[in-house]
Amino acid sequence: MAGVFCLGIATLDYVYGVESMPTRGEKYRARDLAVVGGGCAGNASVAIARLGGRCWLATRLADDLTGDRIIADLAAESVEAGLSLRARGLRSPVSAILVDAQGERMIISYSDPAMPESADWLPPRLPDGVGAVLADTRWGEGALAALGLARRVGLPGVLDGDRRPPHPDLVATASHVAFSAQALREISGEDDPRAGLARLARDVPTWLAVTLGGDGVLFMAQDGVVHVPAFAVETVDTLGAGDVWHGAFALALAEGRDERAAIRFASAAAALKCTRFGGRLGAPTRDEVERFLAEAG
Amino acid sequence: MAGVFCLGIATLDYVYGVESMPTRGEKYRARDLAVVGGGCAGNASVAIARLGGRCWLATRLADDLTGDRIIADLAAESVEAGLSLRARGLRSPVSAILVDAQGERMIISYSDPAMPESADWLPPRLPDGVGAVLADTRWGEGALAALGLARRVGLPGVLDGDRRPPHPDLVATASHVAFSAQALREISGEDDPRAGLARLARDVPTWLAVTLGGDGVLFMAQDGVVHVPAFAVETVDTLGAGDVWHGAFALALAEGRDERAAIRFASAAAALKCTRFGGRLGAPTRDEVERFLAEAG
Repeated sequence: MAGVFCLGIATLDYVYGVESMPTRGEKYRARDLAVVGGGCAGNASVAIARLGGRCWLATRLADDLTGDRIIADLAAESVEAGLSLRARGLRSPVSAILVDAQGERMIISYSDPAMPESADWLPPRLPDGVGAVLADTRWGEGALAALGLARRVGLPGVLDGDRRPPHPDLVATASHVAFSAQALREISGEDDPRAGLARLARDVPTWLAVTLGGDGVLFMAQDGVVHVPAFAVETVDTLGAGDVWHGAFALALAEGRDERAAIRFASAAAALKCTRFGGRLGAPTRDEVERFLAEAG
Repeated sequence: MAGVFCLGIATLDYVYGVESMPTRGEKYRARDLAVVGGGCAGNASVAIARLGGRCWLATRLADDLTGDRIIADLAAESVEAGLSLRARGLRSPVSAILVDAQGERMIISYSDPAMPESADWLPPRLPDGVGAVLADTRWGEGALAALGLARRVGLPGVLDGDRRPPHPDLVATASHVAFSAQALREISGEDDPRAGLARLARDVPTWLAVTLGGDGVLFMAQDGVVHVPAFAVETVDTLGAGDVWHGAFALALAEGRDERAAIRFASAAAALKCTRFGGRLGAPTRDEVERFLAEAG
């Protein structure tokens, strides 16, 4: 069984189903509420475990009830979160997420500003069985340490670049970075994602990609930018789909696949997630992804 | 010590401090988070207890951790919530509240639709020491039962008409109704609140008022509509101010004051609340209100 060491944010999400997205200063009644674990690294970890990978997660929580709930939800999904910090007297990350009748979503997230940035409590080497590292942008020092551990032993180190990396060395320390369109635009200064990838590739040797949701994925190959289309599905809920993509991508690399195959596997997992409501509760199993890929041909 | 029996909603509010109010489909980081009890009846109960009244609260909660927290917060404020329902397997009411840098607020609230509407578990008579009843619009059968108990023994029964009453007999069963401007407009079909009060007063013998925030209060007297101005204060946070007003108004009636004096007392309590951040955590004590009224002359 291949394993992935994940590092970054895990939250408790209060997902409110609303008829229409709120505007300024009014009162709204939600039709539905789901209280589910979330966060980039938390969601990616659950995706990896469901896809049959072993998954360790290092995240920063407080010693509050919210933190207990986050850990319990992860444990129920077979994610090993024992390496996580439980900071005393602080507050664990929570988010309010509004999803309207059209599936559009708005995310308001809170992370305690007093959460320690230092990563010196992380173990000095990766756990036995780790085949890849995945880090998000929500904890710069932690991501730099985890990607550095992967680099030292020659394992893939994937950065989920969903927003501008909080440390200037992160992109160069990672072996693979998959940006969001918005983050790539901000960093490269290029509106066109192809131009943005090409611009960044001049400065770093890192393998670079950008995920474009329903428009698929672009990645930088030796001879230029390559486009991999997304799978066409009936989208119900995109919440957590990007995190599922990154988890599946890192797991595929940990299993020794090449990037092109890893993109295909990750895109299938993310597409299946989009067909189901409930954020990461819609993350697919390995069997589901393989059946989906077999049918897609 | 005068006492008030309150009935209605008590919630747990997640209050997110944001730089600016969110618009469609984006991600926002909150600068601050406060997790505090809320809800019309819950806030009014705390206001009554702080103002030196004895307060019983009947509310509908689930047997979940959120419900435990709501009850613990109320107990810490000396509110007697032992009459409340703890429904098994349901979810207690929660709200996400966004407050921007200008103090504007957006409220998204969730109440479990499976919460039983029946009020047959309420006691057949009011507890000894109750001098008034206060009900909100969030539980129609309960409000009808509680206001009916008050009417039977000739005590004031106040309805907080912050939205359209969910039962057609509620306004007539109450002895006093204080509407919000919006609810009065909806029910009366009149844009002008003076005309709205006059219109409703033709149909019901109930004492009627409308609260207009910084524009004060209008009430229907024998010889027409009377205006009571608000106290001028530096407003920091209006969250819960209307609930504090209703709690203080009911307590003043329980103490035997007339409506005019009760409005003045309630308006002072609400004005003091507006000068402090943190929803009902800003509700004033009796001493503070009396000092404020003495200074106002």
